[in-house]
Amino acid sequence: MNTKYLIPVSAAALIALPSMALAQDEAALHTSYILTTLLFLVGGFLVFWMAAGFAMLEAGLVRSKNVAMQLTKNIALFSIAAIMYWLVGFGIMYPAEWLIEGWLGPFFAITSLEPVGLALSDDFTGTSLDYASVGSDFFFQLMFCATTASIVSGTLAERIKLWPFLIFVVVLTGFIYPIEASWQWGGGWLSEAGFSDFAGSTLVHAAGGFAALAGAIVLGPRLGKYKDGRVNPMPGSNLALATLGTFILWLGWFGFNGGSQLAMGTIGDVADVSRIFANTNMAAAAGAVAALILTQVVYGKVDLTMVLNGALAGLVSITAEPLAPSLFGALLTGAVGGVIVVFTVPILDKLKIDDVVGAIPVHLIAGVWGTLAVAFYTGNWGAQIMGIAAIGIFVFVTSLIVWFILNAVVGIRVGEEEEINGLDVAELGMEAYPEFSKG
Amino acid sequence: MNTKYLIPVSAAALIALPSMALAQDEAALHTSYILTTLLFLVGGFLVFWMAAGFAMLEAGLVRSKNVAMQLTKNIALFSIAAIMYWLVGFGIMYPAEWLIEGWLGPFFAITSLEPVGLALSDDFTGTSLDYASVGSDFFFQLMFCATTASIVSGTLAERIKLWPFLIFVVVLTGFIYPIEASWQWGGGWLSEAGFSDFAGSTLVHAAGGFAALAGAIVLGPRLGKYKDGRVNPMPGSNLALATLGTFILWLGWFGFNGGSQLAMGTIGDVADVSRIFANTNMAAAAGAVAALILTQVVYGKVDLTMVLNGALAGLVSITAEPLAPSLFGALLTGAVGGVIVVFTVPILDKLKIDDVVGAIPVHLIAGVWGTLAVAFYTGNWGAQIMGIAAIGIFVFVTSLIVWFILNAVVGIRVGEEEEINGLDVAELGMEAYPEFSKG
Amino acid sequence: MNTKYLIPVSAAALIALPSMALAQDEAALHTSYILTTLLFLVGGFLVFWMAAGFAMLEAGLVRSKNVAMQLTKNIALFSIAAIMYWLVGFGIMYPAEWLIEGWLGPFFAITSLEPVGLALSDDFTGTSLDYASVGSDFFFQLMFCATTASIVSGTLAERIKLWPFLIFVVVLTGFIYPIEASWQWGGGWLSEAGFSDFAGSTLVHAAGGFAALAGAIVLGPRLGKYKDGRVNPMPGSNLALATLGTFILWLGWFGFNGGSQLAMGTIGDVADVSRIFANTNMAAAAGAVAALILTQVVYGKVDLTMVLNGALAGLVSITAEPLAPSLFGALLTGAVGGVIVVFTVPILDKLKIDDVVGAIPVHLIAGVWGTLAVAFYTGNWGAQIMGIAAIGIFVFVTSLIVWFILNAVVGIRVGEEEEINGLDVAELGMEAYPEFSKG
Repeated sequence: MNTKYLIPVSAAALIALPSMALAQDEAALHTSYILTTLLFLVGGFLVFWMAAGFAMLEAGLVRSKNVAMQLTKNIALFSIAAIMYWLVGFGIMYPAEWLIEGWLGPFFAITSLEPVGLALSDDFTGTSLDYASVGSDFFFQLMFCATTASIVSGTLAERIKLWPFLIFVVVLTGFIYPIEASWQWGGGWLSEAGFSDFAGSTLVHAAGGFAALAGAIVLGPRLGKYKDGRVNPMPGSNLALATLGTFILWLGWFGFNGGSQLAMGTIGDVADVSRIFANTNMAAAAGAVAALILTQVVYGKVDLTMVLNGALAGLVSITAEPLAPSLFGALLTGAVGGVIVVFTVPILDKLKIDDVVGAIPVHLIAGVWGTLAVAFYTGNWGAQIMGIAAIGIFVFVTSLIVWFILNAVVGIRVGEEEEINGLDVAELGMEAYPEFSKG
Repeated sequence: MNTKYLIPVSAAALIALPSMALAQDEAALHTSYILTTLLFLVGGFLVFWMAAGFAMLEAGLVRSKNVAMQLTKNIALFSIAAIMYWLVGFGIMYPAEWLIEGWLGPFFAITSLEPVGLALSDDFTGTSLDYASVGSDFFFQLMFCATTASIVSGTLAERIKLWPFLIFVVVLTGFIYPIEASWQWGGGWLSEAGFSDFAGSTLVHAAGGFAALAGAIVLGPRLGKYKDGRVNPMPGSNLALATLGTFILWLGWFGFNGGSQLAMGTIGDVADVSRIFANTNMAAAAGAVAALILTQVVYGKVDLTMVLNGALAGLVSITAEPLAPSLFGALLTGAVGGVIVVFTVPILDKLKIDDVVGAIPVHLIAGVWGTLAVAFYTGNWGAQIMGIAAIGIFVFVTSLIVWFILNAVVGIRVGEEEEINGLDVAELGMEAYPEFSKG
Repeated sequence: MNTKYLIPVSAAALIALPSMALAQDEAALHTSYILTTLLFLVGGFLVFWMAAGFAMLEAGLVRSKNVAMQLTKNIALFSIAAIMYWLVGFGIMYPAEWLIEGWLGPFFAITSLEPVGLALSDDFTGTSLDYASVGSDFFFQLMFCATTASIVSGTLAERIKLWPFLIFVVVLTGFIYPIEASWQWGGGWLSEAGFSDFAGSTLVHAAGGFAALAGAIVLGPRLGKYKDGRVNPMPGSNLALATLGTFILWLGWFGFNGGSQLAMGTIGDVADVSRIFANTNMAAAAGAVAALILTQVVYGKVDLTMVLNGALAGLVSITAEPLAPSLFGALLTGAVGGVIVVFTVPILDKLKIDDVVGAIPVHLIAGVWGTLAVAFYTGNWGAQIMGIAAIGIFVFVTSLIVWFILNAVVGIRVGEEEEINGLDVAELGMEAYPEFSKG
């Protein structure tokens, strides 16, 4: 307990009025600091929970022979992100000193020549932010980095080798994501240019989508997915898990967008966080309803996986600007996200880009839509387009390079037989549902 | 950041002592406002999570051929509730001006003749509540509306068509629930009459149960459920999911009951929220243990689904008054809920009312019990009975009318063949577990 | 609402400056009280959620014929813990007056000769703590008691009878855990002796592990597990559930460790809570990555269940001291936990101790490691060793006695046929997945 609060000050107060006033001012600042830190902690654990959401969504949408592998990838990628973001990512993303001003943060702590994470550890005892604890900020930001990687694992499921995928995660979470995120959230050149992306429709979601797209191109589609000019549906093995994953993601998104207010110490801020919660929920609902109605109209039958992805696309869409819109604006933004899912999933299939869980429509395309839509509020279409283009090109090209190198050096795709038998038996030697016979 | 807190006031304070005192008073109010808003946000996301709980519980308790449909209904009903409650529900439930004083709120904003939701949107920039942000209040209350609809979907599972069900949800969440809830929580005639229902044992749970009961009567039981005078058990396909759903609901209930304190800005309020958490947990535990022991004694074997429903009935029972009871009182209240489940599930079957997941015993009957039990603390049995009767009759009759109309116009029940083959294949053209062969 | 905050004090302030200063001091204390109570509530619901995590983890790691029973045990044990901890446990653990000073708290309220829980109920109207509400403290502490019991159910799965297990839970949660926990957290002899266990690596996790170990010895291994000198693997039926359970536990652990700061009213405290969140996450990630790499190196294939248990062992390891280490220290502590899992699971099998889910390596052995590691920060190896030994011996011996008595009086193991057919059909008469044919 902070003893300052516990010492009776009544006598002293009579003598030293100025310090009393100061104390009151200070007390308000203390409370504000605590509340904003609390926002980061609660927001952070909600975004952590999204890692479970991605794991369940993806495990539900792959075939049962690949479920254990998909689960392994998800828990491993989160764990690797946690370590890499600490080791170098956080330091790159929020540079004390830039290596290249506005473009590239330091990989090593300048004073010690250690990876920034090692030098950083002890800073957490002090408080180098004046509005919240550094520990809570690190905790919160880390979860966004991990989310970016979670997006990739779904697209590349059912055919990518475990270890090359994890090596990509090392590069993505340690370097690619932190670098592009530093351009905006680290105070880099994009933030100077007037680009606006509140919680990361582009910085997180489209970025993850671009990394996934690059991987999907290098990796190629699953065996038999596109055959004789037809698209072979390969239905997910467990839609209950996929639905659970969607609900988890929806819940976590309140932390993702709400926490990105980065302040909860004033009435204005907490009212903003509230609007963000309400808008985020509305956009998800609208995305789901849009996909519900549209699949009924277009295909004659409602498609549950489209509804799930519609909700997620609504969430991605509102992420770039969850505060400015009215609830009706949030509804429109999210509904467009749902429409995007229904119409772009088939387009990807026409391009023979095999995205197992639909992550590219949901995260990349709806992310671009959401980021563009910010210009309805800011008017600055140029900055939005430039930001999307810059991040898209950077993440896509660097990812493509990494995937090419990995493919050339170790090969990123499992053998045909392994793919047919499933990655679980081939790579892990275990099954997710060993007792249930396959139909 | 609110700059008021950041400007040093030490000099000014010496001159203007009264304003200083005012500032201090104001600061306390600010903190209280932020904390109560935070209660709504955290409570709200916990109650949101209950939507996932209902989805998992119901998906686990239906047969595998209807799981995808049950999941679809659950995510769709939540999404529709989110939109309808915004569009008209919130305005009906908390009327600025009543259409019929104390009985019926406005469907349209009087000034603009738009649905209240459209007019409402921009109000969220201001703050028309003085103790918390309107956005957080809307977010929190919306979740209760959605919960009411979630209750219905379980009872009517495995035989109701998707779209007629969703149209009912439109009416329930946009009109029926907001109207009856306005009587009490909107400051209407029931609240004037001394009725007491803290977090909605009747307003939410029994109301949902009455809507479900009306639907079950119109819809009829599943094919083969009652045959040759015998009750055919149709066991749920996935008790792990059902258990997960129960745990999710239990967790969400802390927000449901705790958030209904509607204040967290004082020591007294936060201590009350704490008591509510402890009592809510105790009632759930007691309901589960009562069902555990009772099924062992009555049937000779413990029945897991009864234990799950016992916990839920305990939660419903304590919802009308989670604050006044001691922990021992909460134990008794919840245990009676568990007993109710064990004894009323068979009664419903005798009446050939086919309630797939047991929602009527859990939400309607235990809800009535919990609401009656409030009179042990208030002494006002008359008001409790009148409130239950008024809400019960209103919701049951209006629901019955809607179900009849829907049945007459489009038919609410799938064809025999569709029911036998399962709604997943018949209505959605997809399966929840396509790879697992059925025994 | 507390009216004190609402009365304008500007006039009064001019007259009574000292009281103004006092009021300000008081206001800060009020805010601190509310925030710490909030920490207990949020921490408490997160630890509650761990009960769902254990249920899913264990349901996923047993064979499908025992899943319904495992779920039943988990929801029942939590419910029993909630009642027993109230009835006697809380009073024993935080004794107003000791029966034996520093060693044994009172089972009955001295004044009324009622079980302490009954007498306690009404205290919750007052506030006998000065920094947080008693209700929130009770709610939070109860969850730790339940966690201890959750650990036991996993080890003894697939062969123990339901009711004898639940009777053990009664004794464990009502008496064994509260007594040993009172030694440290109730201000007993261990806390005097300089022992340090921040959130319960030993008090909760190793204690649960010792109780499980005693049970496993009395109960014996599953039929066919150790045959002809070979270890027969009996793979879990649903690794998606097991992974979900792990993610739930990881999430809940932020409340487990973060809430154990027991204070959030100052900048220092909330910054500490933040460090604890970051360290807890890092230790889990490091445990997972350690097991990931190690199983690849040692077995040539990654083992998902080892990775899951590695993350959990990382969490257990950091629990004794989540605040003092740097993030790098947390990484090392957690990684050792992951290594422990990989190497001690086979050792238990050599000793023919059949631990179905690996709870003994994860909770007991990693718990001991984590508690020992505290001495790197305190320097007091003696106190750590003494604490582990004292709690280990006490819990192990008392548990062993209870298991022996239960075995002698009612028998704790199901018959051979029941075990072969599965506990679900034999003891419950229902199946978790009745429609999926077994391979």
